[in-house]
Amino acid sequence: MSPPKRIALLGSTGSIGRQTLDVVSLHPDRFRIVALACRRSSAEVVAQARRFRPRLVAVVDEASAAEVASALSDMDLQVAAGQEAMVQCATYEEADITVAAAAGVAGLVPVWEAVKAGKTLALANKEPLVVAGHLITAEAAKSGAKLLPVDSEHSAIFQSLLGQRKDAISRVILTASGGAFRDLSDDELARVTPADALAHPTWQMGPKVTVDSATLMNKGLELIEARWLFDLAPEILDVVLHRESIVHSFIEFADGSVLAHLARPDMRLPIQFALSYPERLPRPDPPPDFAALGALHFAAFEPARWPCVALAREAMSVGGTAPTALNAADEVAVAWFLAGRIPFPTIAQIVEFALENHTPTAGESLEELLETDRRVRDLVERNAQKWIRSVT
Amino acid sequence: MSPPKRIALLGSTGSIGRQTLDVVSLHPDRFRIVALACRRSSAEVVAQARRFRPRLVAVVDEASAAEVASALSDMDLQVAAGQEAMVQCATYEEADITVAAAAGVAGLVPVWEAVKAGKTLALANKEPLVVAGHLITAEAAKSGAKLLPVDSEHSAIFQSLLGQRKDAISRVILTASGGAFRDLSDDELARVTPADALAHPTWQMGPKVTVDSATLMNKGLELIEARWLFDLAPEILDVVLHRESIVHSFIEFADGSVLAHLARPDMRLPIQFALSYPERLPRPDPPPDFAALGALHFAAFEPARWPCVALAREAMSVGGTAPTALNAADEVAVAWFLAGRIPFPTIAQIVEFALENHTPTAGESLEELLETDRRVRDLVERNAQKWIRSVT
Repeated sequence: MSPPKRIALLGSTGSIGRQTLDVVSLHPDRFRIVALACRRSSAEVVAQARRFRPRLVAVVDEASAAEVASALSDMDLQVAAGQEAMVQCATYEEADITVAAAAGVAGLVPVWEAVKAGKTLALANKEPLVVAGHLITAEAAKSGAKLLPVDSEHSAIFQSLLGQRKDAISRVILTASGGAFRDLSDDELARVTPADALAHPTWQMGPKVTVDSATLMNKGLELIEARWLFDLAPEILDVVLHRESIVHSFIEFADGSVLAHLARPDMRLPIQFALSYPERLPRPDPPPDFAALGALHFAAFEPARWPCVALAREAMSVGGTAPTALNAADEVAVAWFLAGRIPFPTIAQIVEFALENHTPTAGESLEELLETDRRVRDLVERNAQKWIRSVT
Repeated sequence: MSPPKRIALLGSTGSIGRQTLDVVSLHPDRFRIVALACRRSSAEVVAQARRFRPRLVAVVDEASAAEVASALSDMDLQVAAGQEAMVQCATYEEADITVAAAAGVAGLVPVWEAVKAGKTLALANKEPLVVAGHLITAEAAKSGAKLLPVDSEHSAIFQSLLGQRKDAISRVILTASGGAFRDLSDDELARVTPADALAHPTWQMGPKVTVDSATLMNKGLELIEARWLFDLAPEILDVVLHRESIVHSFIEFADGSVLAHLARPDMRLPIQFALSYPERLPRPDPPPDFAALGALHFAAFEPARWPCVALAREAMSVGGTAPTALNAADEVAVAWFLAGRIPFPTIAQIVEFALENHTPTAGESLEELLETDRRVRDLVERNAQKWIRSVT
């Protein structure tokens, strides 16, 4: 048997990070954690370090890093602090694969550096490809970096396309559960609370992603990701509603054949596939029991009901800095919704406002994209009174 | 573009043969018919020869062959007669691929000779692999012959397995529509007519296959074929009921992932894939519209209700001449049912009787298998009075 694959994990204390460690625990002979990074959560990362014995623990928050260093002083490992420590983890030389699961634009710079360093990346956070897909794919082509998807939909597409002729693909369909609010009326949508939004019917995920699932912005971001991961024309990307979250993607081919990937909704499966690829290891889940399910349901996606998907498509077709603007406005709007400051339908209005008021440029450098991110957040904040009645 | 693929077609006037010619007509620049073979149907094969201009027309029936030769005397082609002519077509040297669609055990010898000659075969008739799978796969390994499936379920499995790790397959599920009688009670089943059996809800096929679909013997034979085509252990082969005939197979992998192949129920698609492989050509069908379908339904297969599947599994696990006995008894029983001589449930009883009264041997040569076929037909015929009230 081959030696264990050495893993650097960015975002170890988030939802994907924890599930990555679960997968590593299932296969201690196949996977080994050599570096961990998180933002703060010192107690949790200390426990993770004791259990998985990495050589590097990176903590962005300096005070937390000091606590972690002190708590782990008996162990033979390095504790690094600051944003630079994230990059150190992402590009860790002894790692065979870097799992990028640090949420938000914060994860962008470490991913970029890992791509420049020619690493193999398991990409769990959407932002790098949404914001900088054009730069990252071009840089990966130069450096030899490999991008493996961790999102269930993209892992599904990736698995389905192995061994298939790409020139025969006619359409790629991502399924959408419809999120927590798929059956609500417009009136009901206007009254939903953050707690309602966080009760996703099928998937266990972090709060930002769960709210994005309810607005379907998540699906819009996934379309942009799919475009870059698989080099697909935006117009052949599509969405279909599927309540059960069992079918994760459909690939349609020129002859009318369709390949679908199906699995129980459990993120450990795409995580494990990204780690084990090109092998496929046993577990983590039994396959769906089709006879017990009885039926799988599908419905047409209605663009008018979920404006965030149309906004994401618009940003995708404009390109350049437009997806950065989309993403920045959505991050601010979702944070406001989660803080109880705006009603749910306002999230899409804020994103629309940002796209209308942002003048897109080509986005030819990471600096330009990060600058756009800052500007659009600022633009939205400055206009807060449009949507928030009493700004506190 | 590469030159057209040259095709030898065995069984040109049957259901698969005609649909193969449809597919060739869709892509005149990619496919060319160089040899045709049929049993008799002289007028039809004459029309086919005028349209597709093969170099060889093989007709088993000598009188029909003479008619065909006379009707085509103005054309620059050879008309060959007799069983040997089928072999000549199957092994036609200038053909790049032989489509084997001559129904029944009659197709076995030509397929065997084509395998020995190292040809690439698109296998549409089940009997060669059901009866002689162990001999054919061993011979193909020696001669370099390639076996491409044409059955929709096996094409589905073949397409899904491209690029996948075979050692990670945990289960292969064939879907079954349940045939024409899936919702009938035992009493109703006892009273169905041949006309009822031939009204298949989703597939257009020949009469023998359509009756085999109603008994689910078809699915049992397909399990045996799948075993040989993909070198799978019998115990990982399974069946699930699926009314819509849209999902054709599920491949379950060790990690819980499932790959499904879906398409409208149209045999031209698997035919075209076998002809175009490793390429995938446009048409013949649009992909299924999942939103319009609304749902895909699945139900557990109940072995007690469809005894033919258990009988086929038993024959598969015994091996040697047992599948030959199964197939021979089924051919006789289906012919009797179609002639109105036995009720529908008696088909399974006759097959069971044949398996119980046949002493299986290793089946180490084609001669031994053909001799078994004759003996079992004879055994069933000699016992006709058990099932047929008035033998005419």
